[in-house]
Amino acid sequence: MSVKKYVYDFEEGNASMKFILGGKGSNLAEMTMLGFPVPPGYTITTDACNAYSKIEKYPNGLEEEIKEYQDKLEKKLGKELGDVNDPLLLSVRSGAAFSMPGMMDTVLNLGLNEETIKGLIKQTKNDRFAYDAYRRFIMMYSDIVLKVEKNKFEHELREMKKERGVKQDTELTADDLKELVDIYKDIVRKETGEEFPKDPKIQLKKAVTAVFESWNNPRAKTYRKQYKISDDLGTAVNIQTMVFGNKGSDSATGVAFTRDPATGEKKIFGEYLTNAQGEDVVAGVRTPKTLTNLKEEMPDTYEKLMKAMENLEKHYRDMQDIEFTVEQGKLYMLQTRTGKRTAAAALKIAVDMVNEGLITKKMAIERIDPSQLDQLLHPRIDPKAKLKILATGLPASPGAATGEVVFNADTAEEEGSAGKRVILVRWETTPDDIHGLIAAQGVLTVHGGMTSHAAVVARGMGKPCVAGCEAMKLDLEKQFFEINGTIVKSGDIISIDGSTGRIILGEAPLIPPNVSPDFQEILKWADKYRVLGVRANADTPEDAKKAREFGVEGIGLCRTEHMFFGDERLPLVQKMILSETNEEREDVLEKLLQFQRGDFEGIFKAMSGLPVTIRLLDPPLHEFLPNLADLRVEITEMKFKKIDETQIAKKEKILHKVRVETEMNPMLGLRGCRLGIVYPGVYNMQVKAIMEAACNIKKEGYEPVVEIMIPLVSHVNELMTTRGKAEETIKEVLAEKGVDIAYKIGTMIELPRAAITANEIAEHADFFSFGTNDLTQTTFGFSRDDAEAKFLARYLEDKILPVNPFEVIDQSGVGSLVDTACKLARKTKPDIKLGICGEHGGEPSSIAFCHKIGLTYVSCSPYRTPLARLAAAQAAIGAKGDTTK
Amino acid sequence: MSVKKYVYDFEEGNASMKFILGGKGSNLAEMTMLGFPVPPGYTITTDACNAYSKIEKYPNGLEEEIKEYQDKLEKKLGKELGDVNDPLLLSVRSGAAFSMPGMMDTVLNLGLNEETIKGLIKQTKNDRFAYDAYRRFIMMYSDIVLKVEKNKFEHELREMKKERGVKQDTELTADDLKELVDIYKDIVRKETGEEFPKDPKIQLKKAVTAVFESWNNPRAKTYRKQYKISDDLGTAVNIQTMVFGNKGSDSATGVAFTRDPATGEKKIFGEYLTNAQGEDVVAGVRTPKTLTNLKEEMPDTYEKLMKAMENLEKHYRDMQDIEFTVEQGKLYMLQTRTGKRTAAAALKIAVDMVNEGLITKKMAIERIDPSQLDQLLHPRIDPKAKLKILATGLPASPGAATGEVVFNADTAEEEGSAGKRVILVRWETTPDDIHGLIAAQGVLTVHGGMTSHAAVVARGMGKPCVAGCEAMKLDLEKQFFEINGTIVKSGDIISIDGSTGRIILGEAPLIPPNVSPDFQEILKWADKYRVLGVRANADTPEDAKKAREFGVEGIGLCRTEHMFFGDERLPLVQKMILSETNEEREDVLEKLLQFQRGDFEGIFKAMSGLPVTIRLLDPPLHEFLPNLADLRVEITEMKFKKIDETQIAKKEKILHKVRVETEMNPMLGLRGCRLGIVYPGVYNMQVKAIMEAACNIKKEGYEPVVEIMIPLVSHVNELMTTRGKAEETIKEVLAEKGVDIAYKIGTMIELPRAAITANEIAEHADFFSFGTNDLTQTTFGFSRDDAEAKFLARYLEDKILPVNPFEVIDQSGVGSLVDTACKLARKTKPDIKLGICGEHGGEPSSIAFCHKIGLTYVSCSPYRTPLARLAAAQAAIGAKGDTTK
Repeated sequence: MSVKKYVYDFEEGNASMKFILGGKGSNLAEMTMLGFPVPPGYTITTDACNAYSKIEKYPNGLEEEIKEYQDKLEKKLGKELGDVNDPLLLSVRSGAAFSMPGMMDTVLNLGLNEETIKGLIKQTKNDRFAYDAYRRFIMMYSDIVLKVEKNKFEHELREMKKERGVKQDTELTADDLKELVDIYKDIVRKETGEEFPKDPKIQLKKAVTAVFESWNNPRAKTYRKQYKISDDLGTAVNIQTMVFGNKGSDSATGVAFTRDPATGEKKIFGEYLTNAQGEDVVAGVRTPKTLTNLKEEMPDTYEKLMKAMENLEKHYRDMQDIEFTVEQGKLYMLQTRTGKRTAAAALKIAVDMVNEGLITKKMAIERIDPSQLDQLLHPRIDPKAKLKILATGLPASPGAATGEVVFNADTAEEEGSAGKRVILVRWETTPDDIHGLIAAQGVLTVHGGMTSHAAVVARGMGKPCVAGCEAMKLDLEKQFFEINGTIVKSGDIISIDGSTGRIILGEAPLIPPNVSPDFQEILKWADKYRVLGVRANADTPEDAKKAREFGVEGIGLCRTEHMFFGDERLPLVQKMILSETNEEREDVLEKLLQFQRGDFEGIFKAMSGLPVTIRLLDPPLHEFLPNLADLRVEITEMKFKKIDETQIAKKEKILHKVRVETEMNPMLGLRGCRLGIVYPGVYNMQVKAIMEAACNIKKEGYEPVVEIMIPLVSHVNELMTTRGKAEETIKEVLAEKGVDIAYKIGTMIELPRAAITANEIAEHADFFSFGTNDLTQTTFGFSRDDAEAKFLARYLEDKILPVNPFEVIDQSGVGSLVDTACKLARKTKPDIKLGICGEHGGEPSSIAFCHKIGLTYVSCSPYRTPLARLAAAQAAIGAKGDTTK
Repeated sequence: MSVKKYVYDFEEGNASMKFILGGKGSNLAEMTMLGFPVPPGYTITTDACNAYSKIEKYPNGLEEEIKEYQDKLEKKLGKELGDVNDPLLLSVRSGAAFSMPGMMDTVLNLGLNEETIKGLIKQTKNDRFAYDAYRRFIMMYSDIVLKVEKNKFEHELREMKKERGVKQDTELTADDLKELVDIYKDIVRKETGEEFPKDPKIQLKKAVTAVFESWNNPRAKTYRKQYKISDDLGTAVNIQTMVFGNKGSDSATGVAFTRDPATGEKKIFGEYLTNAQGEDVVAGVRTPKTLTNLKEEMPDTYEKLMKAMENLEKHYRDMQDIEFTVEQGKLYMLQTRTGKRTAAAALKIAVDMVNEGLITKKMAIERIDPSQLDQLLHPRIDPKAKLKILATGLPASPGAATGEVVFNADTAEEEGSAGKRVILVRWETTPDDIHGLIAAQGVLTVHGGMTSHAAVVARGMGKPCVAGCEAMKLDLEKQFFEINGTIVKSGDIISIDGSTGRIILGEAPLIPPNVSPDFQEILKWADKYRVLGVRANADTPEDAKKAREFGVEGIGLCRTEHMFFGDERLPLVQKMILSETNEEREDVLEKLLQFQRGDFEGIFKAMSGLPVTIRLLDPPLHEFLPNLADLRVEITEMKFKKIDETQIAKKEKILHKVRVETEMNPMLGLRGCRLGIVYPGVYNMQVKAIMEAACNIKKEGYEPVVEIMIPLVSHVNELMTTRGKAEETIKEVLAEKGVDIAYKIGTMIELPRAAITANEIAEHADFFSFGTNDLTQTTFGFSRDDAEAKFLARYLEDKILPVNPFEVIDQSGVGSLVDTACKLARKTKPDIKLGICGEHGGEPSSIAFCHKIGLTYVSCSPYRTPLARLAAAQAAIGAKGDTTK
């Protein structure tokens, strides 16, 4: 068995070894290599951590290797751990490949005990400093390694300051601190039943073990799950010589960014404290000073720091976030890493760095996290605001909104058109509620998930939605809801944050969306690199205009069902469904035709010259009818209230129809092309409306590019039949209008059978659009309306599924079907146009997958198209370096 | 372009040319070849018909070819069509590859007109015979070729008999018949506006054309759809010299079977009429005599006929159905074909013929139509009974029953246990209705199809079910239904025929099921040939016993959900769902455990030594709760009736839970292993009950063979998690009981994702069972509860789908997924056991598919297992000759 190398001196590593040495360790090594003033030390690798996690003890050879490097370090410094005359003190810090809160963090001053403190006093001639270091060490170590509550120590510190009548820690004397050390040790004895460990070697081993174990503590696990960080990366441990920012007024410690992380402006941004140790800055014990003060206080050091930061940024070619300490006038660099930044700053820094010649455009594109862009395209809650958070639901559509609570769509419409801002609160929404969704600022639902009706519609409209808030006890009848004891009534003001799922009592301050010139610039660059086309999903002329503003290359999905709602239309649709004679039905269809034609004219005009893929009616008819249970309750009430029999009979007739139309599993029922086949009148009307609209606006000089899409095909015969009928209608319209319009007829691939038999289906389709929402539903057998609240959350928590397949395409299942379908389709028609119009079309990793399997375009909500353009460019750039392709 | 041969002389063809010459034509050729006395003639091929269907006129060369063969025929006979001295008369008969009612059938005596009749009289010296032939010709030709209603002619015949004061046609004189000919011609003139065609050549061409066209008439099309006969086979046309059974008392015509088609007994069975033409036998103008009379009337002819029939049966090695004519003492064979027979006869004939050395066992097995066997395993309605049929629904579970109508399960149970026979009538059934289904003789539903809950459960119980009878207007409140104007009230007696879908008013006479020794014999032979194992789906100890009687090799699917219904259990299940504390829940689970353990003990005992695959709970929890709409109506009523507030509050609490549990698409919701993961208590209890039961009965000396099946897995992690928990429980039980029980844990493959990732899933599964019901639902995106009534019927009618995929496995979609899964699974585990437990496991063509892809076994309702055994043997025998394998 070959023995792994588990320990690296800072002088041995470099920045490329992130996965072995962790982010912190590899950067310390890199800085050491580059000659920056880094206190010497060594790093125990992530491999060591992983080996430990498996067997729950040090792996073979680790102990010896640590000893070897510790010896080397001591030799280099001429100081030893535990030396009672001149003790070496160490910091022990965790450091994984990705920055990760929740793990054991830092233990400073390790090596102190009753004996070594004497050496420290001797060396520094500063017993106050020494006892200060000692009490800090005991507290940190006890907290992090021994798991004794920190609060217990802080309490004693506060008590002592009270007794001594002082306010600042710095006002306590050496004797006070010495006494505090004894009190702290008592606490440890009491809480753990054991003495605070004296032997510095044991202190070190226990600290290293604590870091290893912190990798698997619940907070760290939760964090990793949220940020999709693999559990088997492990953390490294950095053992570093202590330097002290608390050795007097010529000492200091601080943090700094090479550019402003909030705005991206090119100016140093940082804070420091004199005579302090690192944790004081973080803990906010004293208010830190900005770096401009350092220029005055320690001009030399300041110059050195500035130079170091400039060099680090140049070296790393990215904005750096550093930690430094000044010990008696000497500057030490304790950490450097790529700085976190807001979306706006990310864009500005990327564009600036390209202009400065520091990075290429490709690098600029790769550096932006597409999912971060979302926040710039929607209003958001001011992060500084104090909020009363009632509960957190699922973040179903990004952005934030505030308004009065309303409990039904009609009221929402009424109040909304009266100029009020309202938030619509429902169990869940249905297409019935569309007018309310249009009028509301945002929507909040008890049931449903990221892909529920409310979520999908809200995202399409660019409005916030919080869904699946099961903590909410809703009483629609009495018009209130209760969350954790708080009652919210109709008319009360709440705010919702669809990016985080938060539900907030009262009005939260909002920051408006911001599409900066930097943003436009990056997108312009992205467009040059990407291969995938980007289209938008848009259902109305307004959406289409919005999409065009966002610079899309067409509409990939125009849903026609939403056009059937609205005050004037819904009654017609209901009449059509309830009609008993063909004449009656055709009369209603003729009226609906007028509306539809108008819709399509507006959309074609807005998209003149660009393709518009119009999906024929998809949802089951009963979505247009009243709810069965509601109707039964209504009729029961009418009977008790002794309402006129003929009124009741009328309602009962509707009830009968609703009963007939109601399905056990509407998702798998009479919808899509099945509807078109069973009730051909509706599809005929829609095709007629589309073609008449195209003819009309072509006569006005516009350029309609018509793509008719037939949904929910499972068997090629469905497509053949429906296509055949559509083409008859098209021929008639074109002949009548005397206009020639090129058109395409294609289909959605959204059922497993369609994917498996794509070669047959492709013979009769000019294009495919993958409806990966429905395909995910049927491939997994998950109803999106039910799954998220009922079991998906649990699945994600228990890691039964790595990610939510409705957000991120499931490559091995659903993706494999999409890939199979593409290959089969290309066998039949090598040039067939292949798009995706499911939710996944706007999700970065799914877009990368679409690029890889060679789709023609992705289509998503207009508000996500910038993100899609960037992700598509990243996929194209990434794929070039992808040797698996 | 090569010219096809469109016409064959009887001397040119043989029996193997069925698809070219049709069944009738090829057999006439075969008999001619073998030297049987067949009147000469020729056959126009099915190719000619198909060519005609395409271009709606004779294809190139056909006219000339017919002329050529007609000339040859005339030369051979020395007689010419249209010869005024000695006219040739012809019969024109259609004949497709498969016998097919609904097509144009037979025109006799073609060639007669005002001139040729004189020749006929001259030759026969029998003007009565000649005019009789003429009037028959005009009527048949007008009916079949000219589409003049036959009734109009029959009316005139009746009128004349009335006028002449006679009863029999034979009592009319030559003059009478001559007058009738004129009257008939008048009818034709009046109805068609044209003269009856005189030219025999035109008569012939028109008759041939009429046969061609009859291939595509609606009745023929309907018949082909029903019996799955391809539309592009076409029909042949047989032109044959007339021989006359109506030339006096030394002439006769008749039909005969070589064995009894009802019982299979080895004795000639037939009827004849002297001095008659073929249609008289069919039309029942006179009562025919049995063949025993012929022995006395014409002993020579009789001997010849007997000999011919014996030879024909020997030659064809199957029971023959023949037509013969005796013309003035000379016997002619006009047709021979394999005789249709009842299921019982089919079995007896097959077994007898094996014993007689006429056929091999293999041939015997191949010759039985498995789907015909069903009728022997269920009571059926006496085919001779006169019935008042109210409507026809979907034949959802075979067999027939009669009883009083009841409209809810409770009443069914009550009356059933009081000894009454009842038929349960519902909109549809849910697991709630199980006790009613158990108590009823049969079930009738308005909604639902072949795979609805009612259908599946009824098939499992071997009870008749008629589903999807949308013609029925049901009023549950007022306890009646109406079909086409007939009101049927609670307590009225109806009969249902689940094999045909008929709903009958009143009590229909039933014939009991019959498993004959012949049946047993054939199955014994089948078992030797089949490769596929056959198991049964059985949920109760009773079902298990029944299955064992049927000789199955194990239980392939034991559903546990039905065990949760019943008076004592359902309240417990509801309590479990509604319980608010863990203690409460565990207390209820403990009680349920007792019941389940008892169930499993019974099943394991009945199946001792054979494997029992038990599926853990599968359906969504809300199936155990009251219906949401019902509950809301109930609460509304309670409020109006001013019921005690606390009662209402109680109901409202249940309502809240029902609301939470109710799903939009329960089929794709919280069920199967998802339930086991979210509410692990239920699965733990079930696994515990299974293992305790196995331990208990093993101690008693039985041999339990335990297979635990985890349903609805979409991702391997679901199986791993559920299996892991189950194994912990098993370990505990075995340790506690001190017994060692081998067990297998496997999964259902019933979701596309499971099939696609079967290689991963197989790593953690000891066996797979394909749940092709659910797999069909998700692969097509069809809800079986909704699809059949809503659009599948239309799809089948319009031929969008060739067959109902819930009955016959869809090989290119669903089947392809099953095949993929098998291949992937075997890559991981070459010996993995692969079964199927969907409805398809009992359908012959699907069983053949299962054999082809190499499944280990099929599992179906006990009552279908005989059929499955036979179909499996047929598949094995067929596959050996299948060169595509």
